[in-house]
Amino acid sequence: MAHILSTSCSFKTSTSATPYSKTSNQYSLAHPTGLTFRTSIYSLKKLVSHGKRPLRHLTVCATTLSMSQESQTEPTSGTQDSQNESSKPKRVMVIGGDGYCGWATALHLSNKNYEVAIVDSLVRRLFDHQLGLDSLTPISSIHNRLRCWESLTGKNIQLYIGDICDFEFLSETFKSFEPDSVVHFGEQRSAPYSMIDRSRAVFTQKNNVIGTLNVLFAIKEFNDDCHLVKLGTMGEYGTPNIDIEEGYITITHNGRTDTLPYPKQASSFYHLSKVHDSNNIAFTCKAWGIRATDLNQGVVYGVRTDETEMHEELCNRFDYDGVFGTALNRFCVQAAIGHPLTVYGKGGQTRGYLDIRDTVQCVELAIANPAQHGEFRVFNQFTEQFSVNELASLVTKAGEKLGLDVQTISVPNPRVEAEEHYYNAKHTKLIELGLKPHLLSDSLLDSLLNFSMKFKDRVDKKLIMPDVSWRKIGVKPRTVTT
Amino acid sequence: MAHILSTSCSFKTSTSATPYSKTSNQYSLAHPTGLTFRTSIYSLKKLVSHGKRPLRHLTVCATTLSMSQESQTEPTSGTQDSQNESSKPKRVMVIGGDGYCGWATALHLSNKNYEVAIVDSLVRRLFDHQLGLDSLTPISSIHNRLRCWESLTGKNIQLYIGDICDFEFLSETFKSFEPDSVVHFGEQRSAPYSMIDRSRAVFTQKNNVIGTLNVLFAIKEFNDDCHLVKLGTMGEYGTPNIDIEEGYITITHNGRTDTLPYPKQASSFYHLSKVHDSNNIAFTCKAWGIRATDLNQGVVYGVRTDETEMHEELCNRFDYDGVFGTALNRFCVQAAIGHPLTVYGKGGQTRGYLDIRDTVQCVELAIANPAQHGEFRVFNQFTEQFSVNELASLVTKAGEKLGLDVQTISVPNPRVEAEEHYYNAKHTKLIELGLKPHLLSDSLLDSLLNFSMKFKDRVDKKLIMPDVSWRKIGVKPRTVTT
Repeated sequence: MAHILSTSCSFKTSTSATPYSKTSNQYSLAHPTGLTFRTSIYSLKKLVSHGKRPLRHLTVCATTLSMSQESQTEPTSGTQDSQNESSKPKRVMVIGGDGYCGWATALHLSNKNYEVAIVDSLVRRLFDHQLGLDSLTPISSIHNRLRCWESLTGKNIQLYIGDICDFEFLSETFKSFEPDSVVHFGEQRSAPYSMIDRSRAVFTQKNNVIGTLNVLFAIKEFNDDCHLVKLGTMGEYGTPNIDIEEGYITITHNGRTDTLPYPKQASSFYHLSKVHDSNNIAFTCKAWGIRATDLNQGVVYGVRTDETEMHEELCNRFDYDGVFGTALNRFCVQAAIGHPLTVYGKGGQTRGYLDIRDTVQCVELAIANPAQHGEFRVFNQFTEQFSVNELASLVTKAGEKLGLDVQTISVPNPRVEAEEHYYNAKHTKLIELGLKPHLLSDSLLDSLLNFSMKFKDRVDKKLIMPDVSWRKIGVKPRTVTT
Repeated sequence: MAHILSTSCSFKTSTSATPYSKTSNQYSLAHPTGLTFRTSIYSLKKLVSHGKRPLRHLTVCATTLSMSQESQTEPTSGTQDSQNESSKPKRVMVIGGDGYCGWATALHLSNKNYEVAIVDSLVRRLFDHQLGLDSLTPISSIHNRLRCWESLTGKNIQLYIGDICDFEFLSETFKSFEPDSVVHFGEQRSAPYSMIDRSRAVFTQKNNVIGTLNVLFAIKEFNDDCHLVKLGTMGEYGTPNIDIEEGYITITHNGRTDTLPYPKQASSFYHLSKVHDSNNIAFTCKAWGIRATDLNQGVVYGVRTDETEMHEELCNRFDYDGVFGTALNRFCVQAAIGHPLTVYGKGGQTRGYLDIRDTVQCVELAIANPAQHGEFRVFNQFTEQFSVNELASLVTKAGEKLGLDVQTISVPNPRVEAEEHYYNAKHTKLIELGLKPHLLSDSLLDSLLNFSMKFKDRVDKKLIMPDVSWRKIGVKPRTVTT
């Protein structure tokens, strides 16, 4: 695929008030960039009537009307078209589409000619402000991201900004966009964040569980044919002393046999919220005939996908801090800036990992091959398993090739977890659907290290060490500066 | 045990405003009954400052000061004293102590010389108002109940009225009462209620999950030696085709063996909330060393316990309606008023059942034999299992002996559940601790039927048929009149 790295996106960001005029049942907002934004009457009423009160949600379709109409009437050929019986593009709502996995997925699906809408409250960006964190990579606003994408590709991604825990907002987005599939990344996704203090623990469970319940109710109410693709986590299983299966296990006990949900042993309030979600979704599949795929994803590494590489304005976020950063990405940043790799405890903690290019591929496969009505389908979404020590060793070797002096230290484990354990998790179902894994290679590690070195002046070393303790979490609200 | 049925409680209920005066750091509220109520400065500030706004919570210690002092300095001998090394009464906080199981338990523990506090928001009474329901039995206000109990026995039960989802309230109660054990009944406990509409589904999960999280944080923060006795439900397990064990199952799989949490298959948003709780509690036992007992209780029947029989003012609630009524209790009311017994579907649904006298016994056993630090102990709390058809048959025979003409009809099953299935659930751990079961007997059925006949003029027949459908639940707020 050709990468259009030199394309320039010429629009500007403006925060000035924009005039609006009514056209049929929608208002068009003229914007200094020349692009026109559509917003529903409902949302504008909110905008106008709330006065000084904070705006709860605003539905913005970030597109020129003409381009949007073109893309709807003349879909280009691509994966999506060839896989669907109808030539009408399938409509995918990506909840949490401004986040790390969500953004890459939204672009990938748009590139594959799905009609995509992003639903996001942007609260992940607020967490950065509140905790004093920032992505290693400079990231553009969601508005600029979408304008750039449309400018480059002619493809429109609609944008609904709001909180899915607010059912009034969520139902408006469902009725407006009419999704065929919902990909749900829209949850608080950091285990350490959920362990900062009581209010963050409660927020994480409330936000994730209620948001998902609302999505299930919206599907039941507005289009029960809609396929839910829900991001779970391999962390739901914990580290049992037996093989981890994909969602279910057949048990023979006292001479009788049944296939039951695989036992869960989550190890943070965040991981627990995903277990709660899985149980809730399984019930609605059985009781209401919801069709759902639970993607129990491993730890994602990497930053580039074919689509985010097209322009720097499309660049994905890259977290290296102690709250949102995950093992391999964090190690590469540490190596790049000459910080010792921080192995928590003994380093025998083994997990499933995957390249972000496989995340987007897996989601596409799940959408293109939907679950049946009433089916609660579980895929373990990772490609390889590594221990933390193995990752540290790989990064050390790759760093040495680039002339870096990479040291490793063991720091007291802030988590409560087994540091040496059996781990063998199955992950064949996505392969059977056609996943072609990007396994962790020397060239990928090279690329990640070079990427980290490119942005090393943006690294705040104070953010690297873990500052959230599973055991010390308390009830008082805490300001974390990691 | 002697039942003091003739004792008269002479105090009156008053809703008039009561003057208060400050004594040291507490305010005393003079009451027309002559009893004095203590309330914390914190609560009174709320009372005074809120003006027209609804009072969020009020801590009321329903006791005369002198009686309270007596009972603290001269504990009478009883179960609690003989089982504990210290002669100081153990302090038990009963959350949800105004409800069906909670009220019986609070009185039982108080009678056994535990120092008891009831924490309750009284929202269960609000549900009755909102849904147009009422207990078969007339029940007194919690204030009158506690005054009567003290008047009869000299035993003081403290009362904290508030919502445990409000952590500010919960921490005040913890700091004020300093419990050694917390018995947590304080959840929305009806499966049909959780399936009325989206907002009740969300309420049930939010209320139950966040309330329990708050209790866990309070224990960690204020007294991590405190033992949590949490009411779960046998419904967490669903109806697997293998034997149900008590909380855990040992699985041999691909040549390896581990003991893992028993797989859960809950079948309503209420039952799911209990599964979420169990997972959350298990994690905190592991991560924080919390000591917890999860009582997976079966369906409770009966109304009388030794303590509630002492006076009509202490009478427990008895639900027969389609939302809060459970199978056996509801059948007895139906038989008493000449309404056909309503079997849902085929009637092969089999569950564990227990007499409410065993509920209170089991909780006492759990408290007297606490879990270890870090232990998440699970007991299946029931004594016998029956199918719905078996229960209908038993009630029919018992009714015939009393000259009742008992008919049975099958009504369309409002739930989504297997109507014919294997069911064999273990329940030996509480027996090993000393439980002496009150098995379902002819005399108990006689008693329940007579009891139902006594109050049959209070029955509202419109409330009996199920009106909440698992499949038809929608997003619009619904007023149910069953």
